[in-house]
Amino acid sequence: MPKKHSLYTSSIHYDHRLYMKDIEGSIAHARMLAKQGIIAEKEFDDIQKGLKEILSEIENSSFPWKQELEDIHMNIESRLFEKIGDTAGKLHTGRSRNDQVATDMRMYTKDAILETIHKIRSLQESLLNKAEQYLEVILPGYTHLQRAQPVLLSHHMLAYFYMFERDVERLQECFRRTDVMPLGSGALAGVPYPIDRNFTADQLGFNSISNNSMDAVSDRDFLLDFHSSASICMMHLSRMAEEIVLWSSQEFGFIDIDSNYTTGSSIMPQKKNPDFAELARGKTGRVYGNLIGLLTVLKGLPLTYNRDLQEDKESFFDTFDTIRNTLDVFSGMISTMKVNTDKTLPAAEDSNILATDLADYLVSKGETFRKAHGIVSELINIASSRKISLGEMDLGEHIDLSPHLEGNMKHITAESSVANRDVPGGTNPTRVKKSLDEARSILRSDIG
Amino acid sequence: MPKKHSLYTSSIHYDHRLYMKDIEGSIAHARMLAKQGIIAEKEFDDIQKGLKEILSEIENSSFPWKQELEDIHMNIESRLFEKIGDTAGKLHTGRSRNDQVATDMRMYTKDAILETIHKIRSLQESLLNKAEQYLEVILPGYTHLQRAQPVLLSHHMLAYFYMFERDVERLQECFRRTDVMPLGSGALAGVPYPIDRNFTADQLGFNSISNNSMDAVSDRDFLLDFHSSASICMMHLSRMAEEIVLWSSQEFGFIDIDSNYTTGSSIMPQKKNPDFAELARGKTGRVYGNLIGLLTVLKGLPLTYNRDLQEDKESFFDTFDTIRNTLDVFSGMISTMKVNTDKTLPAAEDSNILATDLADYLVSKGETFRKAHGIVSELINIASSRKISLGEMDLGEHIDLSPHLEGNMKHITAESSVANRDVPGGTNPTRVKKSLDEARSILRSDIG
Amino acid sequence: MPKKHSLYTSSIHYDHRLYMKDIEGSIAHARMLAKQGIIAEKEFDDIQKGLKEILSEIENSSFPWKQELEDIHMNIESRLFEKIGDTAGKLHTGRSRNDQVATDMRMYTKDAILETIHKIRSLQESLLNKAEQYLEVILPGYTHLQRAQPVLLSHHMLAYFYMFERDVERLQECFRRTDVMPLGSGALAGVPYPIDRNFTADQLGFNSISNNSMDAVSDRDFLLDFHSSASICMMHLSRMAEEIVLWSSQEFGFIDIDSNYTTGSSIMPQKKNPDFAELARGKTGRVYGNLIGLLTVLKGLPLTYNRDLQEDKESFFDTFDTIRNTLDVFSGMISTMKVNTDKTLPAAEDSNILATDLADYLVSKGETFRKAHGIVSELINIASSRKISLGEMDLGEHIDLSPHLEGNMKHITAESSVANRDVPGGTNPTRVKKSLDEARSILRSDIG
Amino acid sequence: MPKKHSLYTSSIHYDHRLYMKDIEGSIAHARMLAKQGIIAEKEFDDIQKGLKEILSEIENSSFPWKQELEDIHMNIESRLFEKIGDTAGKLHTGRSRNDQVATDMRMYTKDAILETIHKIRSLQESLLNKAEQYLEVILPGYTHLQRAQPVLLSHHMLAYFYMFERDVERLQECFRRTDVMPLGSGALAGVPYPIDRNFTADQLGFNSISNNSMDAVSDRDFLLDFHSSASICMMHLSRMAEEIVLWSSQEFGFIDIDSNYTTGSSIMPQKKNPDFAELARGKTGRVYGNLIGLLTVLKGLPLTYNRDLQEDKESFFDTFDTIRNTLDVFSGMISTMKVNTDKTLPAAEDSNILATDLADYLVSKGETFRKAHGIVSELINIASSRKISLGEMDLGEHIDLSPHLEGNMKHITAESSVANRDVPGGTNPTRVKKSLDEARSILRSDIG
Repeated sequence: MPKKHSLYTSSIHYDHRLYMKDIEGSIAHARMLAKQGIIAEKEFDDIQKGLKEILSEIENSSFPWKQELEDIHMNIESRLFEKIGDTAGKLHTGRSRNDQVATDMRMYTKDAILETIHKIRSLQESLLNKAEQYLEVILPGYTHLQRAQPVLLSHHMLAYFYMFERDVERLQECFRRTDVMPLGSGALAGVPYPIDRNFTADQLGFNSISNNSMDAVSDRDFLLDFHSSASICMMHLSRMAEEIVLWSSQEFGFIDIDSNYTTGSSIMPQKKNPDFAELARGKTGRVYGNLIGLLTVLKGLPLTYNRDLQEDKESFFDTFDTIRNTLDVFSGMISTMKVNTDKTLPAAEDSNILATDLADYLVSKGETFRKAHGIVSELINIASSRKISLGEMDLGEHIDLSPHLEGNMKHITAESSVANRDVPGGTNPTRVKKSLDEARSILRSDIG
Repeated sequence: MPKKHSLYTSSIHYDHRLYMKDIEGSIAHARMLAKQGIIAEKEFDDIQKGLKEILSEIENSSFPWKQELEDIHMNIESRLFEKIGDTAGKLHTGRSRNDQVATDMRMYTKDAILETIHKIRSLQESLLNKAEQYLEVILPGYTHLQRAQPVLLSHHMLAYFYMFERDVERLQECFRRTDVMPLGSGALAGVPYPIDRNFTADQLGFNSISNNSMDAVSDRDFLLDFHSSASICMMHLSRMAEEIVLWSSQEFGFIDIDSNYTTGSSIMPQKKNPDFAELARGKTGRVYGNLIGLLTVLKGLPLTYNRDLQEDKESFFDTFDTIRNTLDVFSGMISTMKVNTDKTLPAAEDSNILATDLADYLVSKGETFRKAHGIVSELINIASSRKISLGEMDLGEHIDLSPHLEGNMKHITAESSVANRDVPGGTNPTRVKKSLDEARSILRSDIG
Repeated sequence: MPKKHSLYTSSIHYDHRLYMKDIEGSIAHARMLAKQGIIAEKEFDDIQKGLKEILSEIENSSFPWKQELEDIHMNIESRLFEKIGDTAGKLHTGRSRNDQVATDMRMYTKDAILETIHKIRSLQESLLNKAEQYLEVILPGYTHLQRAQPVLLSHHMLAYFYMFERDVERLQECFRRTDVMPLGSGALAGVPYPIDRNFTADQLGFNSISNNSMDAVSDRDFLLDFHSSASICMMHLSRMAEEIVLWSSQEFGFIDIDSNYTTGSSIMPQKKNPDFAELARGKTGRVYGNLIGLLTVLKGLPLTYNRDLQEDKESFFDTFDTIRNTLDVFSGMISTMKVNTDKTLPAAEDSNILATDLADYLVSKGETFRKAHGIVSELINIASSRKISLGEMDLGEHIDLSPHLEGNMKHITAESSVANRDVPGGTNPTRVKKSLDEARSILRSDIG
Repeated sequence: MPKKHSLYTSSIHYDHRLYMKDIEGSIAHARMLAKQGIIAEKEFDDIQKGLKEILSEIENSSFPWKQELEDIHMNIESRLFEKIGDTAGKLHTGRSRNDQVATDMRMYTKDAILETIHKIRSLQESLLNKAEQYLEVILPGYTHLQRAQPVLLSHHMLAYFYMFERDVERLQECFRRTDVMPLGSGALAGVPYPIDRNFTADQLGFNSISNNSMDAVSDRDFLLDFHSSASICMMHLSRMAEEIVLWSSQEFGFIDIDSNYTTGSSIMPQKKNPDFAELARGKTGRVYGNLIGLLTVLKGLPLTYNRDLQEDKESFFDTFDTIRNTLDVFSGMISTMKVNTDKTLPAAEDSNILATDLADYLVSKGETFRKAHGIVSELINIASSRKISLGEMDLGEHIDLSPHLEGNMKHITAESSVANRDVPGGTNPTRVKKSLDEARSILRSDIG
């Protein structure tokens, strides 16, 4: 008897995605019930046969979905009754909707995490390939969006590689915490049947079983873990998106985005807009929103299960879809991106950007760093008032500032600047090459 | 020369908390510079002596703080110049403000994480003690805030224990990701001096050094990790707070909160308000807010350092203070809480709450679970229409519903109900006792 | 030529909801172009005829939707070409996608606001009806979830009425800010055709036209206004939901929720769970999340249009659907809710709840309020130690505390307590009745 | 008797800011009590005298603050007892802490709103002045951060003016909803004394009194209104901040920020970083966070007052301070900003940016817009393959594309482009001048 407002509580329009996990979970539960003698082997066979038929029906789109049955679990359960009669009722022995739905979600989330990690790995590979392709290309490194010091493009790409490496680590930890089976917790207190939880967990590939039934049915931490990890990863992507937008502007001109990742304008024929990068940046909003949404749901909820928890699913699916599609887009966009080396090098050779190097040179001659910094600041002010660059000055004219000033800055170049940053993690080409190799082995060892 | 609006950019009113880390970091950096021959030993001695004097001044409140110097780093640096003159300038050789501040924050965060874990451990211990004190006390377990099935209070306490166990795990992972030293990354590209980053890391107790200088100066993931972990932990606390508020209401009456954790009313003399629990629940808001705040800061920021990142500190301090104080409050509040067993047991003996057990009994006699559920529902409707409880019915009158109905529900009690949930993670007293023991060993092994 | 990743940028799965507004907007634009002589009357006729056919096709589900055309605008435009050939191209004279989409969204939002207001009005009416039905029913009023002072249920219902009144006000203001037509702003700079923006605005029922083209195409404030208003309204609903959950618990027992708004349990036959109220409370999360999502999208976006803005729609539709459905649910749930007056009055007659009244009585005899408060506190302590209630004490025994103590509390009742709160906004029955009348006229005047 | 954990509940470190409002509110309440004969005139005189002394003490920093008294109200109340003895106790007749604190906050918030509006008005004035100073300066307008069409800098400034105009409107509405006095609502139910609420409201400058006592003590909508308005305003500021950062980059070079609003680098002598704009952009995070924080606090709170509500203050003060200081910074930064017209015009004269104008020209000759758009796209492709710009082409060579192509683009300039956008809200110089005049009158009428 469907209720008047059942549309409000209905979740079938999104939780149908759990169908495979729900069926797998039910078969494993029934097999365990049979093994324990709680149901007969024949009953298990019927249940399994019925559920497998249902799986086929869903996969070949012949399943008779019923909106009024509200969720995936009732749709499957009701269909099983149609198929095998009262035996279907035995499937609920020693199981409640509360532990069933928590189990389904954890199984689905485990797959989602692995797929997300896989997509991050692909993007990391694109980044390494791009880094290798433009290994010694120099561009300005920025702080405050002001040109600061020359860096290798490959070094820049590796910065993102390491951000995503942390994302992978976080997701792996999230996976471990998700990989715990709540089934057997019943509605909240455990079940009064001699079930074998570890057997079911083995069937379903869970690493362990939950320790406390009340916690197990009301815990959604694993989803919050996923939302936070996804939010941080999306934030990293938004930073890369911002740089792609900047670099493809007429003002920077550092890169050309492949036309598969740009769109034109309905009104301005000249436009080649970085829509994919912009949209990815924008989608950060929904991922953050989904995180805060679930945190809000859980705030102040008494134990154990409350219907509020149904709101855990739609936002999770949305974040998962968003992050995996965005990762795909970036893999492709980075792979196909072209760097305009005729723009990047001149920008990095702007002599003012080499000011730190001049200061460091003075330090090597004996000035303290603070003093050397002051001397170079003064030189820049003088150059600026003469409307020339540091590189065009005769430094020797300014020995009043420091006896070590002589000649010009010709020996200080973008190349010498990056070469000098010869410390672990620095932009020196040999260091970067080594870092690339290490990054490659991280990817290999994870896949291998 | 302080600027007109320097108050806007000033951070000294909160970042002074980093003083110890800033000084430790500077001493370690200077020691390394000396070891590498970049500065003289004598210079290192002067720097170290000066910095230690500054540390004393701060700790005995004689340090001349200057608002116009804006932050803790400039305050200390400027004071060092006053003390040791130009040698102070050498301290900045091979170091930038960008890697310095990132290092200070990581050092501080590491301590904050350890302290937070320690406080969670204390709360977990309070929970275990309370569970032991009321080991076999039964109260109603709730779903949808409706009485569902009887559970042991100790089982309920353990549900929280395991939530906090996950919080500890998350914080430990956060610690590992924080325990990476950025120093040596310079402003963004590395430094042109033959520094020994690993030596400095060893001095400062860092487990490793960062892999990429551009990432290192613009990465605040470790703070986001802390904010998410704290948000989830605070959410757990908000759930416990909600239950404390409910349980101490006149309607529930399950507990008495110690008067150290309640306050009276300015106008209603009878009131004993659970203010501490309420305030804790409310403070969930600021912890969530701080998380979303930092996520917002980082969204769409191009590499590398941007001044926006200064906003990473105040919200972090606020979340850290909030969570540690809230954990303290809960440890004390749980320790001193009294359970009114004259209220909990009657509530759990309400015969309707035993309906599942009656259904399970019928299943043990051969009905399918779905059918047994239907029979008991019908019995409850009949009882309800007669304005009696299930426990007051003569079940034998209803053999038309099931041949297995006979007698009354006397043999189905709160005690039998919990005893029957004899599965791993269930509320059966022996299971719970074992779970308590395991929980104790977790605490012991972590401390030992 | 659809792109490989066009699914990522595609929005047709949600923006198809704008079809009516897009067609209305296009017809009005074309009519204006004809009036201004920019296109021929015949061309307008063709365009209008084509668009009306398209409208019919969509409404009778025969429209050939094409995923690869990505959005509603391209689907309609492309279909118009199929229908009327090259004349379709003239529709884009003096219009860009940027001002077109902003106009469509504002038209849709205006309707959404009006519908939301209408639904709030219905809920307010339900509240007033319920207040009238139980006009003089007394229940405990709570602070800190502790019984504080008796209040009328009708007064309590009116508290919600006034919250929703503010929501209506906010939405009306939001409407005024939405009711501004951006069309004519072109891509960002205005258009080089002699268009008549006010004529188009009149056709489309806009109150005014935007003042600045750059602002007009990048402004989404009207959606943020809607999101904030919806968040506050949803917060109000979450508070009511919480009270419904509490009041329908066994412990409170104040109300029975109609079975259309509860659901049973798959495992516990006795359960009658307030799922609709819980789910509504949970949906607060998504509404807050959508607000923070759009705020995140807009943070730090340079002018003018950026593709990030496409993310303005899906979350808006979700919030609109959520709030309107939730309002419907509450209207029905409140209308059908039954109050158990056999539970509410005894709870409100608990003598401790009348402690303030006793203190006020002592004030009326000459004690200062602070002193009277202290005396009553002392009496409660004495009663508590004797395990009796304030109402069971012989007050005359305690004239050492105050000479005004005599007899017992029989003259201080829940009824006298509410009657005494005879101030504007107080819970005195005559005041509440008057307040109800005023509330009725607010509703009448708004509809009339 | 201060409690062990009173630091947790203490709020004096932030709510001391309410001292003036608390004292004003108390004096008005006492005056009303005297007028109504509830207290004696002499008692009022004593109370007023005592409170005024306390005000002086606070203002000249001689007030003996006591941490253990927890909040501003108890500090003042306790001091009043010290000064005038038991009469102080009469001040609480007909008033509860709940309505008192709500009244104080509304009074403070009203001032905060007015000050915020005032600061927005100043910034708007700076924008108009800057627009006038560079009235006819042309720069590229951007969509997708790609050069789109030329616009006037003054038009761009006016876009921000109108954003802030909406912020003012929102704050004015927020003011109206704040301007309602809750005093007289008592703890939750009204008070049992013949008070005159309207008299008190008049004294305190409130426009009206609250309608429902239960709503009045638990309502914090007015703060949420402020938080949302501030979030939207801060979002506007973050967009302007982003543009300032972009425009002051070496790549854009459109503006020079005054050195009062930039800072140097500790390591890179050449840097002139837009720190104030960046920090403002970053502070958007805390303002969003404070909004979501309070929304979280209020979610699911039952009526009426709960201690969670104490968390309403600190985040409000933080948002108010942030927005007013940020507005100050922007007023100064905009006023002193210099536009490099030698950079803006060439960027706007880039011939590709004029492609829309060429298409519009072809439309004026009879092509449909869609076709003209296609022709120009083709021309751009040809030009691009020849590595020349559109402006360097001989259009006459391409009459195969359109018979209307002839000569070159010399007659299509940045100036002609902006001149042609001659519609209300467009960037045509006369239109913009008119718009500036209208904006000026808005400011004048608001102040006058």
